[in-house]
Amino acid sequence: MSTPTIEWIGGVDGHLRLIDQTKLPAETELLDCETVDDVWWAIRKLSVRGAPAIGVAAAYAVVLATSDSHESVKSACDHLATSRPTAVNLFWALDRMRRVADDADRDELAERLLAEAKAIHSEDAEQCAAIGRHGADLLEQTLAKGSGILTHCNTGALATGGDGTALAVLFELHRRGFGPHVYADETRPLLQGSRLTMWELTDRGVKATLICDSMAAQVMREGRVAAAIVGADRIAANGDSANKIGTYGVALHAKAHGLPFYVAAPTTTFDLSLATGAEIPIEERAASEITKPGGVMFAPEGVEVYNPAFDVAPAELIAGIITERGVINPVTTDTVTKMVAN
Amino acid sequence: MSTPTIEWIGGVDGHLRLIDQTKLPAETELLDCETVDDVWWAIRKLSVRGAPAIGVAAAYAVVLATSDSHESVKSACDHLATSRPTAVNLFWALDRMRRVADDADRDELAERLLAEAKAIHSEDAEQCAAIGRHGADLLEQTLAKGSGILTHCNTGALATGGDGTALAVLFELHRRGFGPHVYADETRPLLQGSRLTMWELTDRGVKATLICDSMAAQVMREGRVAAAIVGADRIAANGDSANKIGTYGVALHAKAHGLPFYVAAPTTTFDLSLATGAEIPIEERAASEITKPGGVMFAPEGVEVYNPAFDVAPAELIAGIITERGVINPVTTDTVTKMVAN
Repeated sequence: MSTPTIEWIGGVDGHLRLIDQTKLPAETELLDCETVDDVWWAIRKLSVRGAPAIGVAAAYAVVLATSDSHESVKSACDHLATSRPTAVNLFWALDRMRRVADDADRDELAERLLAEAKAIHSEDAEQCAAIGRHGADLLEQTLAKGSGILTHCNTGALATGGDGTALAVLFELHRRGFGPHVYADETRPLLQGSRLTMWELTDRGVKATLICDSMAAQVMREGRVAAAIVGADRIAANGDSANKIGTYGVALHAKAHGLPFYVAAPTTTFDLSLATGAEIPIEERAASEITKPGGVMFAPEGVEVYNPAFDVAPAELIAGIITERGVINPVTTDTVTKMVAN
Repeated sequence: MSTPTIEWIGGVDGHLRLIDQTKLPAETELLDCETVDDVWWAIRKLSVRGAPAIGVAAAYAVVLATSDSHESVKSACDHLATSRPTAVNLFWALDRMRRVADDADRDELAERLLAEAKAIHSEDAEQCAAIGRHGADLLEQTLAKGSGILTHCNTGALATGGDGTALAVLFELHRRGFGPHVYADETRPLLQGSRLTMWELTDRGVKATLICDSMAAQVMREGRVAAAIVGADRIAANGDSANKIGTYGVALHAKAHGLPFYVAAPTTTFDLSLATGAEIPIEERAASEITKPGGVMFAPEGVEVYNPAFDVAPAELIAGIITERGVINPVTTDTVTKMVAN
């Protein structure tokens, strides 16, 4: 992609520039965020989304608060933490920024925070690359060349500070000449699969076919895919993985068809303070996301809607979690702890 | 509903009036069909849809051809049979009309055909009512009052010549004071669940919650529903049931959560000439149904799309098939044949 998903413009008095992902793929519109609240809204409205990208954007947002004092950093972190509840990378990045602030004198505060946000950003990019390599190694060994691989939601350059998580694996397979044929779930309600994933895949020349979420089981039954790979927003200590709503269904379908179901995520997405996925908070979002796709009203006015934005794929359905440090397999509290705890 | 889904206006020289379901729920627009081709397009474009309703509409369409001769009836039947491939009620209704034409003199042709179309229509309404009673008897006995019940696509008054198939069961449960809470899958790509089912349910005062297709597994996991019930477009001799794409996934989810998955359909939806569901032709529809919901382009231009309109729930996942003659349970070639073959 020629336009970066997230870019810091200028020095300590600079600002954050994001691609407004709500406008993709029709328009590549840039969103210049000058205040903490600008970024809060960008996260809330999904102008920037994807667990790692949310973490990176939130880190830069803290820099926007530093003109005042340590106090303004603290309140910026508190405010940003309320933007979305599920992706743990948000809280992880804010914790890192808080720790740096605690350690910094007032006159070096802005500089230290900007350096830390840039470090979070570049580390994320490196983690994406490593996830791509580990995942491609695994899939190259276990799947036939040219295999179909199903994915859900968007987990590419638009979702991270680098090349992606699950999509980084597919990009790397493509680079290696494996020739994956990606089946992309459109991912209702906000259609990140059709709007963002199909855009990234076709942009890089990866063979890709768009399907509705409800077609994934049929695609598996017809033998069109040999595996499924998704990202994650928060992974509990036992490996239970929260991800975009519909992921749990994909995991069940994969099991029913004897196909491996993989999760790809950096270790920053793990939350070892939670024993299982049952403790992961699941965001509920507005009814209008379901009733008015693209602003066109499809349901009768005022109907009751249930709109959980995430679900949890239980560890027992996950064939492996691909991290920047290697692949967790089998997925148990023991193997997760060994790989993730420092 | 105050406006009938399908209505014949006038006598033998009359015409067919349909609700244009592509416009619901925003507008209740009537479509007056004066020619066979008008009805062919109405079926093709899904202005009228649902296996039983397609059969009824096609039967009336044959009446529109009779001004000429037996020859025009034959060619009308041949033409109408090309409108959509999966719902067997279409072919069944055309066969009935052909047989009546074969048996009729030219001077009584129009009258006999109109009488037959009206008989198909009223028999379908009676079958819907009987399905509602048998299904409600079954669910009343096996589920707790007020249970959540998941459904997919639209199987109500808009899909039939009467009160529906799966929805007729839910309407009857509601009438009996069972108080079902229906979770309606929106049913991508054409959103018959949000557009039509939510409209019918709220119109009749049935408690209903709209979800995306990708949320069905989560709704089951949370214990919000105790069963799933769907319609069918064609049922093979062994009970394998073709229905709107996504139905197979719902059946797999139900199995994974230990919930019964029911199919409700009149015996006219069975095709005993097919041993299994593998022989049922599955319609593929236009990419634009997926890429442009409501006319808004959501995917990059020109992407590859796979859009099968139906899938097949295998008999082993079906707890029972509710017909107007009673419930088929267990679902085997033997039990299907006993219930359906005359």
